[in-house]
Amino acid sequence: MSGSSYGQIFKLTTFGESHGIAIGGVIDGFPSNFEIDIPAIQQALNERRPGQSKLVSARQEADQVEFISGIFEGKTTGSPIAFLIANKDQKSKDYQALKEVFRPSHADYTYQKKYGNRDHRGGGRSSARETACRVVAGALANQVLVKIGVESSCYVDQIGPYTMTEVKWYDKHYIESSSLRCPDEEASSNMQRYITELQECGDTSGGAIRCIFRGVPTGWGEPVFDKLHAELGKAMLSINAVKGFEIGSGFAAVQMKGSDHNDQFNEDGSTQTNYSGGIQGGISNGMPITFRVAFKPVASIQIPQEILHKDGELGALQINGRHDACVVPRAVPIVTAMANIVLLDFYLRQQRNTLFL
Amino acid sequence: MSGSSYGQIFKLTTFGESHGIAIGGVIDGFPSNFEIDIPAIQQALNERRPGQSKLVSARQEADQVEFISGIFEGKTTGSPIAFLIANKDQKSKDYQALKEVFRPSHADYTYQKKYGNRDHRGGGRSSARETACRVVAGALANQVLVKIGVESSCYVDQIGPYTMTEVKWYDKHYIESSSLRCPDEEASSNMQRYITELQECGDTSGGAIRCIFRGVPTGWGEPVFDKLHAELGKAMLSINAVKGFEIGSGFAAVQMKGSDHNDQFNEDGSTQTNYSGGIQGGISNGMPITFRVAFKPVASIQIPQEILHKDGELGALQINGRHDACVVPRAVPIVTAMANIVLLDFYLRQQRNTLFL
Amino acid sequence: MSGSSYGQIFKLTTFGESHGIAIGGVIDGFPSNFEIDIPAIQQALNERRPGQSKLVSARQEADQVEFISGIFEGKTTGSPIAFLIANKDQKSKDYQALKEVFRPSHADYTYQKKYGNRDHRGGGRSSARETACRVVAGALANQVLVKIGVESSCYVDQIGPYTMTEVKWYDKHYIESSSLRCPDEEASSNMQRYITELQECGDTSGGAIRCIFRGVPTGWGEPVFDKLHAELGKAMLSINAVKGFEIGSGFAAVQMKGSDHNDQFNEDGSTQTNYSGGIQGGISNGMPITFRVAFKPVASIQIPQEILHKDGELGALQINGRHDACVVPRAVPIVTAMANIVLLDFYLRQQRNTLFL
Amino acid sequence: MSGSSYGQIFKLTTFGESHGIAIGGVIDGFPSNFEIDIPAIQQALNERRPGQSKLVSARQEADQVEFISGIFEGKTTGSPIAFLIANKDQKSKDYQALKEVFRPSHADYTYQKKYGNRDHRGGGRSSARETACRVVAGALANQVLVKIGVESSCYVDQIGPYTMTEVKWYDKHYIESSSLRCPDEEASSNMQRYITELQECGDTSGGAIRCIFRGVPTGWGEPVFDKLHAELGKAMLSINAVKGFEIGSGFAAVQMKGSDHNDQFNEDGSTQTNYSGGIQGGISNGMPITFRVAFKPVASIQIPQEILHKDGELGALQINGRHDACVVPRAVPIVTAMANIVLLDFYLRQQRNTLFL
Repeated sequence: MSGSSYGQIFKLTTFGESHGIAIGGVIDGFPSNFEIDIPAIQQALNERRPGQSKLVSARQEADQVEFISGIFEGKTTGSPIAFLIANKDQKSKDYQALKEVFRPSHADYTYQKKYGNRDHRGGGRSSARETACRVVAGALANQVLVKIGVESSCYVDQIGPYTMTEVKWYDKHYIESSSLRCPDEEASSNMQRYITELQECGDTSGGAIRCIFRGVPTGWGEPVFDKLHAELGKAMLSINAVKGFEIGSGFAAVQMKGSDHNDQFNEDGSTQTNYSGGIQGGISNGMPITFRVAFKPVASIQIPQEILHKDGELGALQINGRHDACVVPRAVPIVTAMANIVLLDFYLRQQRNTLFL
Repeated sequence: MSGSSYGQIFKLTTFGESHGIAIGGVIDGFPSNFEIDIPAIQQALNERRPGQSKLVSARQEADQVEFISGIFEGKTTGSPIAFLIANKDQKSKDYQALKEVFRPSHADYTYQKKYGNRDHRGGGRSSARETACRVVAGALANQVLVKIGVESSCYVDQIGPYTMTEVKWYDKHYIESSSLRCPDEEASSNMQRYITELQECGDTSGGAIRCIFRGVPTGWGEPVFDKLHAELGKAMLSINAVKGFEIGSGFAAVQMKGSDHNDQFNEDGSTQTNYSGGIQGGISNGMPITFRVAFKPVASIQIPQEILHKDGELGALQINGRHDACVVPRAVPIVTAMANIVLLDFYLRQQRNTLFL
Repeated sequence: MSGSSYGQIFKLTTFGESHGIAIGGVIDGFPSNFEIDIPAIQQALNERRPGQSKLVSARQEADQVEFISGIFEGKTTGSPIAFLIANKDQKSKDYQALKEVFRPSHADYTYQKKYGNRDHRGGGRSSARETACRVVAGALANQVLVKIGVESSCYVDQIGPYTMTEVKWYDKHYIESSSLRCPDEEASSNMQRYITELQECGDTSGGAIRCIFRGVPTGWGEPVFDKLHAELGKAMLSINAVKGFEIGSGFAAVQMKGSDHNDQFNEDGSTQTNYSGGIQGGISNGMPITFRVAFKPVASIQIPQEILHKDGELGALQINGRHDACVVPRAVPIVTAMANIVLLDFYLRQQRNTLFL
Repeated sequence: MSGSSYGQIFKLTTFGESHGIAIGGVIDGFPSNFEIDIPAIQQALNERRPGQSKLVSARQEADQVEFISGIFEGKTTGSPIAFLIANKDQKSKDYQALKEVFRPSHADYTYQKKYGNRDHRGGGRSSARETACRVVAGALANQVLVKIGVESSCYVDQIGPYTMTEVKWYDKHYIESSSLRCPDEEASSNMQRYITELQECGDTSGGAIRCIFRGVPTGWGEPVFDKLHAELGKAMLSINAVKGFEIGSGFAAVQMKGSDHNDQFNEDGSTQTNYSGGIQGGISNGMPITFRVAFKPVASIQIPQEILHKDGELGALQINGRHDACVVPRAVPIVTAMANIVLLDFYLRQQRNTLFL
């Protein structure tokens, strides 16, 4: 109701602030009697973790997930799966200076106005740290999806002005072999140079992530309001710093003609092109589901800016800590996780229809 | 649950197929004791109606809304508001040929596979006719929003390759004076010519709609998953033919630097730029809310294509009826309606927070 | 959200006031491709209808259900099923006298205070007429339940001081052969005499309904909050005039000892007694589900009482129309319908668990 | 969705099994900027705790609540409030014998059949230990309710055959001065003797709790399905061991006449009697809200019984641990907590209506 839950049957509720005791989540609706690979969950969390390379921020968090309930002797019991991730590297004192001020393009101002009150330490509830909980839930969802044949390829396809030349499926291990999760050597090398330059002058860059899911059978997605791509869009736009979402042809469709855009059928029901992005009328059509997500440059820059004091005065912003020059590579596991959550929820929602088919 | 409802407190459920007896909707959660201007609802519906000009399709529907419940002696009673719009121009016989076949880039195939069954007449539930119900609900929501000072400017800003030169607020009567709802004379004239050309060769064009809402106070939107722009995105992506959504800077943010993208504060809490699109951390910040929606070209073209028969054979598609060469102008009231629904829902959701501020 | 919807997957939303154009409902979540017996729906509605015998009220309504959507060529399409029941015998003028006053133990006062406004004609939204919509939805749910082997026996087991001697399963046609739906000839004859006496002096009586559902397999019901009997209880208590609900042993359990109350197992998992009422830990255990519902005497009596004027003065109540001396027999189909709705919803909810069993 | 959440705006989700690491909960939707008295929460939890007297079971749990999020510097932030209660006295080895068997009238059998799997230790998810989380949430809700003038009197009014003579308001400190939470000295002394006798022979007793809430203003409760007493009923029936619920006159109404049962108005809108239990048409009418809850005798008795083995054989039940001879006194804080949760949720739900009154 108040926005910290996602999903209809696979329902995830997250909680916690970046500098409290812990963050965590509860999943109600996971199928029962399913064997969970817990180390794989931790591995997904590690892939999101800060401090993985010199190109990303230096906050060191173990990000160790602890399951509190819902998994017994390695299997789900059908009861809520609750988990915690302790906040170990809190350094709350660093943030004392931010108590009475609002940073530009952060959520400080809007949280204060909405709630009359906020945990000002490091973004509190609005911190991207919350997305670690989504990664845990997404990794759980992924284990069910893999079992029924769904797999994904998600990667960085643009940072600043540098874009990949070819959009296609890449294997995960190949994507992970790139420190920027961009499986195009030339683009990746340009991106790295660009980020290093920005880092040196304390600036940040936007970027984009492309996702392909294959193996989704025909029939997932609920018309009218809960179209599969509408829920994917909501899920992506709920990730910190996301400014845009497009499915299939996306914004390019604006300039296309119907005669070009229509995906002509093959005899087996597959289509010759996939401008639909694997979804027609809000329902998966068996073709790969393809979408793209736009991220803004991170608002925490090391360049002098003005802050707004609570009492209405502007002042110089005291720059604290180290921040990512580009979060987009770290967002790949988050985007993947949210898509997994959406897809599993629709798989479970579709069960009511299969009874009399 | 099954996707035909939208909203948490202002909850709209729509029903009906394009060639059934009627389409309609129920709104549960409208504030009570609010005086309704019923002719204004009908007027909104008229603005969406087919057959308004020679540039749009010739289906003639009176689209007369009839309220069944929830409004008594001109005021809302707090009970569900139900309404019907009769389907008068059904011409069901036209569609008999489509019973056993699937048209390219339509929802025929996915509905059949999902449900094992479908109302094949004119798209049935997947028809854009359903959006008339959203327009009614949106027009009701709008009356509350106007009362608290929220107003909108939504218009076509691109069709095919033709774009407007200046993005700014335009008054509604000025937008409505353009047959394409594009308040830029030069762009509009290019668009008209382009559509006429496409119409002559039986083809269709995509397009984009830009929206600006002003007067939304600080504090609407619910972190974490129900960010205001995430719900706006879902609402827009749930409209037929929408392929993309961007808030504020949108996809342009991918190429921007943080030092450019950060919206610097003024002393009153407003910002000098508005790349955030009026939303920070998922919560409105008092600046205008700006977003843009991409539409694909309509799939119903008059150019020969192949259809897929149920038994797996491809055949020539028999072309029926007249269709819009570009639906985007008619989508303006739909986009506006969905945004009104989202905004009113968040206004009502925010009430739980105002008790102890 | 605002209370006019019931169910999680099989979701019913009702609308309409007793003296508006029509009442109706929308069901979102009905399984697709299921063949519907429409005359059977009408039959269920006829069983609830006023004017069936001289013992019940004389309002004459055809109560003809009209399906608007979701059923195509006799089968469900998976889309929302919407239906209307016209209000034909409105006689609104009768109610003009009630516009400014509140009748004792009616909802007039609370609706006015809650909403600042109400449709005062015949109870408006608070009228038991709304339950006709539940009967339609329940009859639809029943068709699925019957197909999987669930059947029910619901009957009047007490009116005023007169109770049945034996609680057991009775076939529906036998129950229906009693004008009071009480399958115990002696009790029924006492009840009839009692109601006739009350009718003569303008008074009304309470009563109770007992329900037995058999064929529900083990596993329906969701701990912790959505226990099967908790939802049954809510569903029953949401019916007009219901004051109490008990499952299995019910209030008698208060005086029992654990050694008596525990249901000892048979080797096949069935139990020797059924004090649990077919539900343990909120989940069906395969035994018959048994519950009982208490109804207050109808508040509309023909005996002089005082009404409260809006301006705070008490006055004599002008007695209008004819009313039931005892509604309980007519409530049998409503109780059955609500139980069917609850059970189908839990059957659908259980699907998420069956995937890895 | 899967039953571990309660509430629409004030939404509580609980998690945890009786013998896992911890139990806990998340509340999403608490009003922001509200000052919390944390020791008062712990005090409520202490009142529910086992081991309070020789009449109740000897399990010793500190039941210390730890808040993880949502409260900052003593005030709510509007973000989810998460909390944990560690399971310290787990003694899991005691339960090894129960791994393969089902105890009579427990949830062992139904959980196993539903989920294919269960945490068999001490009831796991079905244990009444889960209710500690409800007490925490209820105590939080209570602080808001007290601030707006709502207060309660809940007490044991029957154990076995012993009932109180007078139903009226009792102050909480007076109720708490009775070890059985029964504010009637004679009844209480009979109940104590009865429980002691049962304890000696290893048996258990049912009982009933009566609740009175005063200060609830007119207007809470949502027709049609979410009537205030329907939600109270569901909430009560969701508590372990509850078999019945009645509002106001309850089952006694079955034998009453309308002329007796109708609550006649006073000029100020209050009523001379309160058979309605403070609720008319599902909406509070300003009179005290009164209801009563029936509890079965606890199923864990020390008297030899048969268990069912997984493989279908019956055997002797090995009796472990000590159990309460009557849980009803300990259930008073649970009943109070659930009622507080329901009432706060309806207070928040009513906010959408107050905008144009």
